[in-house]
Amino acid sequence: MLTTPDFTEITATAEIRTSTHGNRAKCLQRLVRLDLPVPKTVALSFDTVRAIAGGRLPDLRALIGVFDDGALLSVRSSSQMHDWGGPGTILNIGMTDAKAADLARTHGQDAADALYVGFIRSYAVDVLRLDADGFEGPMTPRLAKAEFEAEMEEPFPQDPAEQLAEVLKSMARAWEGTTARLLRQAQGAPADAGLGLVVQEMALGIGQGLSGSGVVQFASPETGEPQVTGRWLPQGQGRAALSEADAQFIVRDPRGKALEDGAPEQVAALKSAGRLTRERLREEMQIEFTLMNGQLSILDAVKCPRSGRAEVAIAVALAEDGIITRDEAMLRIPPFTLNQLLHRQVSPLADRDVLTRGIAAAPGAATGKIVFTATAAQAMAAQGEACILVRRETSPEDIRGMHAAQAILTERGGMTSHAAVIARGLGLPCVSGATRLQLDARKKMLTVPGRKVFHEGDIITVDGSTGEVLVGAPPLVEPALGGAFATLMDWADAARDIGVRANADTPEDAAMAQRFGVDGIGLCRTEHMFFDSARLTVMREMIFAENPADRAAALDRLLPMQRADFIELFRMMQGQPVTIRLFDPPLHEFLPGDRDGIRALAEALDLPVSRVQARIESLQEFNPMLGMRGVRLGVTVPEIYEMQARAIFEATIKASRQGAPVVPEIMIPLVSARREVELVKGRIDAIAAEVKSKTGTEFTYRLGVMVETPRAALRAGEIAEHSAFLSFGTNDLTQMAYGLSRDDAGRFMSAYVQLGVFPEDPFQQLDIDGVGELMLLGAERGRHARPDLMLSICGEHAGHPATIAFSRKAGFDYVSCSPFRVPVAKLAAAQLSIQDKHLPQRVETLHEDRG
Amino acid sequence: MLTTPDFTEITATAEIRTSTHGNRAKCLQRLVRLDLPVPKTVALSFDTVRAIAGGRLPDLRALIGVFDDGALLSVRSSSQMHDWGGPGTILNIGMTDAKAADLARTHGQDAADALYVGFIRSYAVDVLRLDADGFEGPMTPRLAKAEFEAEMEEPFPQDPAEQLAEVLKSMARAWEGTTARLLRQAQGAPADAGLGLVVQEMALGIGQGLSGSGVVQFASPETGEPQVTGRWLPQGQGRAALSEADAQFIVRDPRGKALEDGAPEQVAALKSAGRLTRERLREEMQIEFTLMNGQLSILDAVKCPRSGRAEVAIAVALAEDGIITRDEAMLRIPPFTLNQLLHRQVSPLADRDVLTRGIAAAPGAATGKIVFTATAAQAMAAQGEACILVRRETSPEDIRGMHAAQAILTERGGMTSHAAVIARGLGLPCVSGATRLQLDARKKMLTVPGRKVFHEGDIITVDGSTGEVLVGAPPLVEPALGGAFATLMDWADAARDIGVRANADTPEDAAMAQRFGVDGIGLCRTEHMFFDSARLTVMREMIFAENPADRAAALDRLLPMQRADFIELFRMMQGQPVTIRLFDPPLHEFLPGDRDGIRALAEALDLPVSRVQARIESLQEFNPMLGMRGVRLGVTVPEIYEMQARAIFEATIKASRQGAPVVPEIMIPLVSARREVELVKGRIDAIAAEVKSKTGTEFTYRLGVMVETPRAALRAGEIAEHSAFLSFGTNDLTQMAYGLSRDDAGRFMSAYVQLGVFPEDPFQQLDIDGVGELMLLGAERGRHARPDLMLSICGEHAGHPATIAFSRKAGFDYVSCSPFRVPVAKLAAAQLSIQDKHLPQRVETLHEDRG
Repeated sequence: MLTTPDFTEITATAEIRTSTHGNRAKCLQRLVRLDLPVPKTVALSFDTVRAIAGGRLPDLRALIGVFDDGALLSVRSSSQMHDWGGPGTILNIGMTDAKAADLARTHGQDAADALYVGFIRSYAVDVLRLDADGFEGPMTPRLAKAEFEAEMEEPFPQDPAEQLAEVLKSMARAWEGTTARLLRQAQGAPADAGLGLVVQEMALGIGQGLSGSGVVQFASPETGEPQVTGRWLPQGQGRAALSEADAQFIVRDPRGKALEDGAPEQVAALKSAGRLTRERLREEMQIEFTLMNGQLSILDAVKCPRSGRAEVAIAVALAEDGIITRDEAMLRIPPFTLNQLLHRQVSPLADRDVLTRGIAAAPGAATGKIVFTATAAQAMAAQGEACILVRRETSPEDIRGMHAAQAILTERGGMTSHAAVIARGLGLPCVSGATRLQLDARKKMLTVPGRKVFHEGDIITVDGSTGEVLVGAPPLVEPALGGAFATLMDWADAARDIGVRANADTPEDAAMAQRFGVDGIGLCRTEHMFFDSARLTVMREMIFAENPADRAAALDRLLPMQRADFIELFRMMQGQPVTIRLFDPPLHEFLPGDRDGIRALAEALDLPVSRVQARIESLQEFNPMLGMRGVRLGVTVPEIYEMQARAIFEATIKASRQGAPVVPEIMIPLVSARREVELVKGRIDAIAAEVKSKTGTEFTYRLGVMVETPRAALRAGEIAEHSAFLSFGTNDLTQMAYGLSRDDAGRFMSAYVQLGVFPEDPFQQLDIDGVGELMLLGAERGRHARPDLMLSICGEHAGHPATIAFSRKAGFDYVSCSPFRVPVAKLAAAQLSIQDKHLPQRVETLHEDRG
Repeated sequence: MLTTPDFTEITATAEIRTSTHGNRAKCLQRLVRLDLPVPKTVALSFDTVRAIAGGRLPDLRALIGVFDDGALLSVRSSSQMHDWGGPGTILNIGMTDAKAADLARTHGQDAADALYVGFIRSYAVDVLRLDADGFEGPMTPRLAKAEFEAEMEEPFPQDPAEQLAEVLKSMARAWEGTTARLLRQAQGAPADAGLGLVVQEMALGIGQGLSGSGVVQFASPETGEPQVTGRWLPQGQGRAALSEADAQFIVRDPRGKALEDGAPEQVAALKSAGRLTRERLREEMQIEFTLMNGQLSILDAVKCPRSGRAEVAIAVALAEDGIITRDEAMLRIPPFTLNQLLHRQVSPLADRDVLTRGIAAAPGAATGKIVFTATAAQAMAAQGEACILVRRETSPEDIRGMHAAQAILTERGGMTSHAAVIARGLGLPCVSGATRLQLDARKKMLTVPGRKVFHEGDIITVDGSTGEVLVGAPPLVEPALGGAFATLMDWADAARDIGVRANADTPEDAAMAQRFGVDGIGLCRTEHMFFDSARLTVMREMIFAENPADRAAALDRLLPMQRADFIELFRMMQGQPVTIRLFDPPLHEFLPGDRDGIRALAEALDLPVSRVQARIESLQEFNPMLGMRGVRLGVTVPEIYEMQARAIFEATIKASRQGAPVVPEIMIPLVSARREVELVKGRIDAIAAEVKSKTGTEFTYRLGVMVETPRAALRAGEIAEHSAFLSFGTNDLTQMAYGLSRDDAGRFMSAYVQLGVFPEDPFQQLDIDGVGELMLLGAERGRHARPDLMLSICGEHAGHPATIAFSRKAGFDYVSCSPFRVPVAKLAAAQLSIQDKHLPQRVETLHEDRG
């Protein structure tokens, strides 16, 4: 039997829950409990709204009977989470000819007409979905009603219950619409998320005395610092009106009129309500209020809108004021919010002239002149000019140019292309895979279909947080790493139970990592050290060496440079662990690809161009990712690793003499078989013995393996017998598990994610089902063979909260991510550990006790 | 306490075993048991010889006491397996001044002097390792003894026991030498393999009456057909003498004198010994004999030497004669032996002028004129000229040229490079990775350092069985697929318990597969069908299509061609299962790479060169192996798979009408996620429904997945929910498990195998530990989700006996290999099933009851 759907008046003791009536209804009940002057309100539960969408209405006469006779009503949506949205508010339900006549008597004809016309328009357009055109321009109630009748072929309804019925049905159905569902699902709402509604008696905001409506909040939406902001419109109604030009400030303000000027008591009451809600609702709230003849009503309160920076400041302040716990403060901040604090951002107030869109590959925004080559970037930087490096794609040769640029923009590539990875490491904004770009590097031109041509030197802005490329130089907001952010990081360090290290290739990277506070360096990619132009020449001599002796001579020249790098790195890390990955990339990455470069190299090496070309060709590979690199080079050209080991050990001795003792961790890349580790370990141990005996100095070091191939994960048991640690390189592991090159995946990844083939890009979000299983197998087998084995993850995924959750569960010792991901990782790690601690209460904590 | 090492006289009842005294000792005992005239023989066990190597000799006086007074002795090695080798035989031990004087009396001074000088020389050079120079040229015993004394600073020993002691010690130590150990380990000997020795009383072969020595066998070493061959040297001793010019035939022969001419009874006795040994030793034996004054002695018998073809003929004949079982016959033939029967071979008697060496990538030999391009190969073939296609490496564009060539030679690549895989599929000999080759395709020249320059049109021979490239045209031996081979294949088919299918891309391949007898086609790679030049143009139009409509138009033109291919394939297979893999390669493989090709394409498509170039560039990939191919194309450009499905279904209807009903198996390549299968399956099922309804004809088909990515193996459970079968593509699975491109691995694979990093090239021998575990996980999870799931392997490994053993154990339904591997696979499968049946007796069967 179908019963009539239910409704509940919101009183201090009514059964109202967020999970049944939504966030707004619950919040209103809290305001009632605080004895704040909330007008009479009725809540409709999710079930009731579902019934309404299905065509069954509650007893509307009974509902209207709750309110004062002839009261006008508003209906607002009340979804479970504020972010999930809901249909817009409808005001003034109950306006009829009779009510209009009443109002004309009490409030004057003009006010009554304005209200009536406004309601007819809103009812026609927002509720009944009539064409808005007919209701535009100045209008009288008579004209509005005539237009309504012409469109609907029936007169404008004069029964408040009929009006309310249409409003409720319209809002209930809007919630079921596809667009609304997709939007809220994007915010994390489940498929069956419900909508609640609240029906509230209007406090009109129109009257002979001090009347009007406004919105006020007590923390800056930009910084989160205490500050009363908001707007107030005398004789106005609803939030929409506050954007009108004659809206006034709330507190005294040099820029214009303020409510406080004429109504100091009411503003004091609002401030007191702000304090009260902050303390008792344990959140900075934004309050919507009405004054009618000086009488304050509080209509609604929502979590006050805020930037990421303000989010952090507010949560930390609430905790410092003892209103919430530190744990609660940490749980409230979505980790990725911190990205907004670490990087410059385009101001939320800026106009955005979007030239094109790509993948938001590295967060932050930067403005500069377009350059098309790494060399041009360096030249521009040398003149102190900010520039944006625009490339089809970047390669290791572009590294110095990338260092010189303010941001990177590439036509090809995805989240984990070379440009994206390096940019994130350097903290540079990057938009990759901007496929609509048409580059002509020779003519130094950039076009986007339908837009003007851009030339070298034209100014653009790369917004790596949104993936947009903007024309010109919009205002930017600076990062904010002090104050609340620093406090939050301290709390996270205290709360987390998994290590967070940084991937850092240079002393500069290490300095950046230290700024964010890390437990060490988890991945130092030594090859980047060879791209410096002086070293590159020696590197190329090494590659062109005719025999081991010539090769050794070239390596002898590289040795002191490497050693100096390591000494500085060790000094910077002050005794914290540093994991150095031995040389990994294929040698051809160090050779020039273009004719000029080849000729220059031939001159430098005093060789015929044809020989240089032949050597380059002989080193080319069909699939460089799967070729002669990593330990395969280490085994077949052992001199390189031997030089590196010597540099590491000599640097260890030097740095340990001058500071905290260093215990370097040496990591072998691209292992797929135990014997590779045995061979390399044998040689490195021999070098260590030699250095010890030559210098008469003892030191210790740890040798481990980067697990990047599925086979290394499967054979982790026997590999661990020779390894002090295993670090999972999830970029390559993902590439190999899927058989998918991250550099080539951009071509179809977005289609794949849209079609739901992959729930997420596996290079962004660790694939727990496949790659994760390989990691778990590897971890388990490794630990079984060697219980003290240190385990970690050092791929691009490492800074992602989901990866950290996985790594904690798997008992890993640490995650290692790019320096700019460290804050996110630390906060995510802290949240996970807090959640574990509070597990039983967590849902209550987040959803009920809070807003 | 150290006891004196032991020796045993070989009698019918003595305790002599192959596993303790070696193959020769055991065989001699068998000859004794057959009452053949074997001179008195003493066997020294492995343990005794080990003791001798360690310096402890048996009681030699007692040993010599076994023989007649003053008898001369020989010592021969007796390893456990004949193939494991052993030090050479030493004859005439016991020659002293006194014995020489005796012999001078009985056999004349010349014979005595020759024997004495011969022994002194052999004792000095072979036993004591003196420099051979001093003992060369004509010599008397006196001069020989003087030379000995000058070198050794002691007189030539006159005590037979002292001579014997030195001989035994020398042979025992030679066995322990590194070279000997490596050689026998290459033949599969374990590290601790022992050496036995046999000491035999000499039957001199010198005498007044009919005397001499010889070797005889009763089956042709080339064909295995019954035929008495051998040599005999009157007044001669030992095998070595038989290569001398005055050696005679055994049976009457138009080419020269024969033993049978003067000694028909003795030859009859030898023939009877041959029959007896064949029946009782159950093997074709080669017999070493001596005549002394007409008296026959049988000194030794070994398994007669033979080609692969003879091996098959002899084993089949023994089984057909009821001497051994069919199972035993099948077990005796190493499966890879069959390769020699399937392909032309360079005659074992040919002179080999080796130009260079590479990887023996596809077996067989062929002679032809050098060509450097696929076009030249086609032109040469059109003129009826045999040619050898020489390329740096081959690509799919070379396919037609490869078809036209007799053999392929490439500078780069390994066992599983494009050239190697295609060549094996086509049954063409191939040598890949001949890295010393220097090609200049433009000048049409080929050089190898230190050799003359070769030009287009010069004749070379590619020996893909040895990896050698020979100058000129040595004599070749034709394949032999009838007779014994066919019988053996029938037996193998009856014995095996796992399916063997062929990988076949064209009706020609299918015909070849049918010739070898298969259970179906396990992998038909449809993309090869598009390289035909008429189709290639349409294919390129499809790739260049501006919109889905243009693409559909191009595909509509490809449809009837594909359908015709499938109809012919289905007809050829007469209702046997055919697994068709949907389009797999990246589209850029179909586009030209050189300037001329690009210009031609631009003309054909009526597009500017720049657009063609831009499109080609936009399709280029960093790692094509890991790029936009396989199901990724199928999902993002669904029209291609839809066209293929339609062609398959329409061909199914047509072929089923005309012959046995066809149930096509459609296989999706490069899957890494369940949803890929769902999407493709949805579309293919829809096409099937449409074809059924349009034609009003019912048919059935099966849809399955090629498991090539580690992730597909791990997620096989959920993938199997939508798959009737899973077929493991071990080439790609190996590439991805190791993170190793088979095309690039050549650069370091040989170093890796030499260093023992990989026990074998994992592209040749399936990596059971890593790749195998992925397969087992996949098989188990797949079968768990779907108990009737059909499982198979269709990678290059599939024809390898070790892979077949693995696949049987894992419960796979079939293996699918290239047609020319089918015989090997069938025999290997039969052997495995026979071995399982006979498991308890197997070792006995192979090692004891046989030789």
